[in-house]
Amino acid sequence: MSFHNQLTGKFSDLQDIFHPGSIALIGASDTFGKWGQVILSNILAGGFEGKVFPVNPKGGKLFGLDVFASVRDISHAVDLAFITTPAHTVPGLLEELGEKKVKGAVIISSGFSETDAAGKDLEKEIVDIARKNHIWIIGPNTMGIISPHAGLFATGSHPRPKKGSVAFISQSGNLGTQLAYWAEQQGVGISLFVGSGNEAMLTCPDYLEYLAHNSNTRYVVLYVENVGDGFRFMETAEKINRKKPVILLKGGITAAGKKAAASHTGAMGGDDAVFRGACRQAGILNVSVPSDLLSLSAGFSTLPLPLGNRVGIVTLGGGWGVVTADECAQKGLVVPEIPNRVVAAIGKYLPEFWSRGNPVDLVGTRNPEAPAVAVRELMKWDGIDAVICLGVIGRHGLVKQLLESTRRSDPEASADFLAHVEKMDRKFEEGFIAQVAGFMETYQKPVIGVSLTATDKGTVRAVPGSRYGGVVYQNPETAVNVLAQMVSYGRFLSRIKGD
Amino acid sequence: MSFHNQLTGKFSDLQDIFHPGSIALIGASDTFGKWGQVILSNILAGGFEGKVFPVNPKGGKLFGLDVFASVRDISHAVDLAFITTPAHTVPGLLEELGEKKVKGAVIISSGFSETDAAGKDLEKEIVDIARKNHIWIIGPNTMGIISPHAGLFATGSHPRPKKGSVAFISQSGNLGTQLAYWAEQQGVGISLFVGSGNEAMLTCPDYLEYLAHNSNTRYVVLYVENVGDGFRFMETAEKINRKKPVILLKGGITAAGKKAAASHTGAMGGDDAVFRGACRQAGILNVSVPSDLLSLSAGFSTLPLPLGNRVGIVTLGGGWGVVTADECAQKGLVVPEIPNRVVAAIGKYLPEFWSRGNPVDLVGTRNPEAPAVAVRELMKWDGIDAVICLGVIGRHGLVKQLLESTRRSDPEASADFLAHVEKMDRKFEEGFIAQVAGFMETYQKPVIGVSLTATDKGTVRAVPGSRYGGVVYQNPETAVNVLAQMVSYGRFLSRIKGD
Repeated sequence: MSFHNQLTGKFSDLQDIFHPGSIALIGASDTFGKWGQVILSNILAGGFEGKVFPVNPKGGKLFGLDVFASVRDISHAVDLAFITTPAHTVPGLLEELGEKKVKGAVIISSGFSETDAAGKDLEKEIVDIARKNHIWIIGPNTMGIISPHAGLFATGSHPRPKKGSVAFISQSGNLGTQLAYWAEQQGVGISLFVGSGNEAMLTCPDYLEYLAHNSNTRYVVLYVENVGDGFRFMETAEKINRKKPVILLKGGITAAGKKAAASHTGAMGGDDAVFRGACRQAGILNVSVPSDLLSLSAGFSTLPLPLGNRVGIVTLGGGWGVVTADECAQKGLVVPEIPNRVVAAIGKYLPEFWSRGNPVDLVGTRNPEAPAVAVRELMKWDGIDAVICLGVIGRHGLVKQLLESTRRSDPEASADFLAHVEKMDRKFEEGFIAQVAGFMETYQKPVIGVSLTATDKGTVRAVPGSRYGGVVYQNPETAVNVLAQMVSYGRFLSRIKGD
Repeated sequence: MSFHNQLTGKFSDLQDIFHPGSIALIGASDTFGKWGQVILSNILAGGFEGKVFPVNPKGGKLFGLDVFASVRDISHAVDLAFITTPAHTVPGLLEELGEKKVKGAVIISSGFSETDAAGKDLEKEIVDIARKNHIWIIGPNTMGIISPHAGLFATGSHPRPKKGSVAFISQSGNLGTQLAYWAEQQGVGISLFVGSGNEAMLTCPDYLEYLAHNSNTRYVVLYVENVGDGFRFMETAEKINRKKPVILLKGGITAAGKKAAASHTGAMGGDDAVFRGACRQAGILNVSVPSDLLSLSAGFSTLPLPLGNRVGIVTLGGGWGVVTADECAQKGLVVPEIPNRVVAAIGKYLPEFWSRGNPVDLVGTRNPEAPAVAVRELMKWDGIDAVICLGVIGRHGLVKQLLESTRRSDPEASADFLAHVEKMDRKFEEGFIAQVAGFMETYQKPVIGVSLTATDKGTVRAVPGSRYGGVVYQNPETAVNVLAQMVSYGRFLSRIKGD
């Protein structure tokens, strides 16, 4: 139908573009804050191991590298070019890139269809030139790309998310790079970030087709305002979602949002009820707020998928168990009664007057084994599909304050003893997370932690050598929301298997 | 009707209890982790300036203080006692406290009505003794109290929220102290925290009556599972809410939550639709998740109340503006078009192709004055009641990473210049928050910040000498939710004024 589908080597072209051996940076500069400086410093500081060729007619040296007056002057092959120079220079530059057989151009420059009629015409012109020259355009008006598996960080702001399995495609550059920064802060590993910009040539469905075959990517996060060819979008998204969960936020779903989106990406709106219905039908996880994109990424990429909606709750504090049970019920999750033998197994580790039910309230016990026993006994029982564990991870901050109080108030307190308690408490968290990762391997059920507090550690706590890890949200509502979405996706998978 | 209402000096008794000149700690211990150690170390390390008398039959010295074998042996007057010894010792201890004319007893000890029939009887017995002896019981089975204005921190975990105007009353000890810890982490100042425990004697409505007259308290946060006498609860809550906004979370609103609550506080449930309706009628802010309690506390206690629902949005990044406009529309807030003169005033500071509308997208400008100008021009216009400002505060983390990239990649970069940029950027945040606090004073409209990132600073950023401060949430949905609740409360106030 379109140029994209005619090109046989599209997947391998994009694979080369996102894992380039060599890069030209057109518009390279050392003026702090200019795009040519921001992108180049990001690529170099990010540890890209391929060749980097700064291009600027002024020549000389930049960042200790030789500067080329034109890409024509680079003797080495170039896989990917970044263009940061004004819009009117882009047509000529694309011709040069064509001569140089460059596969892709990330056009950071703005001044195209997002501005006025002349900008629209210029955008058409560059697409024509790129087609003739077999160059894939990312953008224009993009914030750039991040490809951690290639050591390539090339965006206008400098988040450094670690390597992982979640790909982010965003039609908003700032929202997208902020998501990448959240991924870094929360420990979510990513396979790729693309700010798709004006999508003059490569559009969301193209990236989805690529990601479907990209082995590093197992989960896809999308922020879209403008789905353009809605049929192709949904067809592509549905296809990849059957193998790789697609977590999607659509901006511009209200009149106010649509108006804002029209002035942002020129999105024309469309019928949201139809869009939502199509997502539901396709099993796509259509979330309503940006933070869901990250919390779901953390859960999906780190935990086994639950096979049902029955939740065991382990809590340090009865009130937390109550509000979590309320949240579960409101999101379609069940908090079942647990059988006597499970009550008995857990009860051995708890004081006499414990809640004897689900939620399992650990308060009152000082037995450090009790939390792991409670989690394991619930997981062992086939009436439970997932466990939410509240307050076990994250109490470290308050333990430190308790120790500090003792240090300050009791002149007789043993400094060694207090240091030992603090160390044991730190070790406890790591040990507990490792134990739970083992349980997840054994029982293939997710355990979601809730810290009940802001911690300096991220949401995802990797466990070396384990395919599962700790996932610790700050509040129960996030844990319940993520679990409900995982249950929903699991049901979708069963449904299509049953087809 | 009850004992409480017959006592004339109840307000002044509670005022003395929460601002005691002297405290006896019954069950004092130096065994790390025992309640008698945890509470005593908290009081001492928290900087309580009154007298503290440890009581333990063993006598001797603890924490450098003389230990009394009984409260009878203390020659000084005692205003408040904490009891941490086993349940069966409490009746005798209350008799002794009566002789000593102690006004209040915070009974930390458990083993009362939360356990079994014998525990219920014991609880009745201690209430009878306390009544005869004119002692107010807080608890039993409470996590304790925090009274920052009295320098009194006396809970089982050791959060240290600063002095402020928000009172927290919680029927769940752990959930409550965790809220106090969130308050500390987010910079929300509190006037009082009470874990109300089993509420054998003082119940939620009693605390509300006290808070209505307590001058330090201007906002009230409640976590309740069991409203007991629903009529008196609602009557009291309605009354205080007309002067001091009441932010309430009810646990046990679903069958699953009710079951959990029954085993936790013995809450009997009740009709939630009726309860919700009564809250709505009374203008009480009935939130659905614990984190709302804190985010609303931050907003209400730091910002002027909006007089309407029309929102101006200032954003670093178009996508953020779109999702925020969507959220506003879904929560009943309006994002109006702005008139040409406001567009013109803001446009002077922005590049030619800016969005020329609301949301005001600042992306592209490097003019450091632009954010404050945009906020001010929107506030000046009488078609706007509140401003949400996205990404202006909180970008410091990414600016640091950009500077770090430059340092690492460009051997020619001037270290002095980069240090200067970093310093200016830090100063910018402070200066911007101070400017905005001034605008809030002038225009009496709230400005809510969104950092779009996890920062090491709290939600509330106090501005010295100003009654308003910065409030910066991490994501737009929280900002919109808080604003919607503030609008709702403002409307309630107009409604009752019109009565």
